[in-house]
Amino acid sequence: MKIEDYLGRKAARVEKEMDRLLPKLKAYPSIIHQAMRYSVFGDGKRIRPVLVLAAAEACGAPDRRALAAACSIEFIHTYSLIHDDLPCLDNDNLRRGRPTLHKKFDEAQALLAGDALLTFAFEVLAGYRDPRMAARLVTEISRAAGTYGMIGGQVVDKLSESQPVNLPVLDYINVNKTGKLIRVSCLAGAICAVAPVRSQRALATYGEYLGLAFQIVDDIMDGNGYMQFMSESQARTKAVELTEKAKQALVPFGRRAEILRRLADAILARKK
Amino acid sequence: MKIEDYLGRKAARVEKEMDRLLPKLKAYPSIIHQAMRYSVFGDGKRIRPVLVLAAAEACGAPDRRALAAACSIEFIHTYSLIHDDLPCLDNDNLRRGRPTLHKKFDEAQALLAGDALLTFAFEVLAGYRDPRMAARLVTEISRAAGTYGMIGGQVVDKLSESQPVNLPVLDYINVNKTGKLIRVSCLAGAICAVAPVRSQRALATYGEYLGLAFQIVDDIMDGNGYMQFMSESQARTKAVELTEKAKQALVPFGRRAEILRRLADAILARKK
Repeated sequence: MKIEDYLGRKAARVEKEMDRLLPKLKAYPSIIHQAMRYSVFGDGKRIRPVLVLAAAEACGAPDRRALAAACSIEFIHTYSLIHDDLPCLDNDNLRRGRPTLHKKFDEAQALLAGDALLTFAFEVLAGYRDPRMAARLVTEISRAAGTYGMIGGQVVDKLSESQPVNLPVLDYINVNKTGKLIRVSCLAGAICAVAPVRSQRALATYGEYLGLAFQIVDDIMDGNGYMQFMSESQARTKAVELTEKAKQALVPFGRRAEILRRLADAILARKK
Repeated sequence: MKIEDYLGRKAARVEKEMDRLLPKLKAYPSIIHQAMRYSVFGDGKRIRPVLVLAAAEACGAPDRRALAAACSIEFIHTYSLIHDDLPCLDNDNLRRGRPTLHKKFDEAQALLAGDALLTFAFEVLAGYRDPRMAARLVTEISRAAGTYGMIGGQVVDKLSESQPVNLPVLDYINVNKTGKLIRVSCLAGAICAVAPVRSQRALATYGEYLGLAFQIVDDIMDGNGYMQFMSESQARTKAVELTEKAKQALVPFGRRAEILRRLADAILARKK
């Protein structure tokens, strides 16, 4: 099977489940549910939720055990994009070829739809039948999304607009703004699979390196971030090295991690 | 003991615990932790967290069991005020005599500090040692704060600026925007106390009526909301009736609910 087919098939599965979980379009007050769905069902690549499913699979768990965590992380990713697009942050009018949420609706509804997706993500996680799993997922995912994670990265990214950035600061932004949510996606898959601690750690390490490689490939495509500090070929070399380190963490899984290896290669090779 | 002294003593306990839980002021990135603390440590009355503690007490549990839930709900209340104050919603410059967060810092930091407090609230809840309690609290509190609760009320409140409101819509706004978080405060206290289901239900009912009475008293003081539909004496009568219904729900608790009865009276009698 081609890895693109795997990605497409799992993304479709995640989308179907997100549709099932989210409040219906017409549920009162309809406008907020329309707004949430408009942003969730944009043309996303679903990399984070697919990583959740693939990590669970590497630990021997079927998709259905990891689906709720996968959707929850995609809701958090979507909320972060909605808030990032707002005028006080990136002030973007377009996202993936469509108007951003505050352009399609208005700023107030975009603010609230982001808040609602974040809140709903935790409601979904708390719905895991095993309360131990639910609590652990809420702990790990809230940390990854908080001020020592995604929000912290966003804060420093915003500050860096008004002052020069050096490489350590850029590393901090990337590790936190993008990296922590990708890392916790892989860890969440292992948690859903009730994998032993050493497998959880190995998948978190895989996700950590993968997240950094992902960001560098992004920067190469956009000419941003790391491209201020290195040439394209240096950046490419760094991304290859990080991808290798990510794969190194998968050694104990043997053939069971084949999909994760190929996902890492696909992320390295991806184009706009 | 005077009820004001009780409120003051418990509020101090909650503030001390919030200070202990929140990231330190200088923790990197410092600006977001400064922003979170600026808003949390405003001159709040701490009604919600005190209700959590008092409800737990009525079920025989000591403060320390309910403190984390109490702080978590106050973090969510604070986040909702920060986001409500933003220019795209109420555009307020002052809150309790101090500059609102986006005036003190800027809009971007206010947006992110609100996001961070919401995220952190769930991290705190997930930290309960009993995972069953943690998961239940996350479920109940996320629902109360979501689109079928506080956010839903805020959405309809915002829509009502541009179209005339009738009494059922105003009721919806109040039940959801203010009422659901007050209701879940009382329920959370019962959950932390591992109270039987019928006690949980009774305290949720108490909180439901109390939340509505609270909002009407607010409207009487501000001349807003319900005052469009009734005279001050009609509104006062309605608040008294709701307070009586709230107390009715406490009958099974006998003397153990004395504090909750007096809190209801204090809320009814409160002045600006």
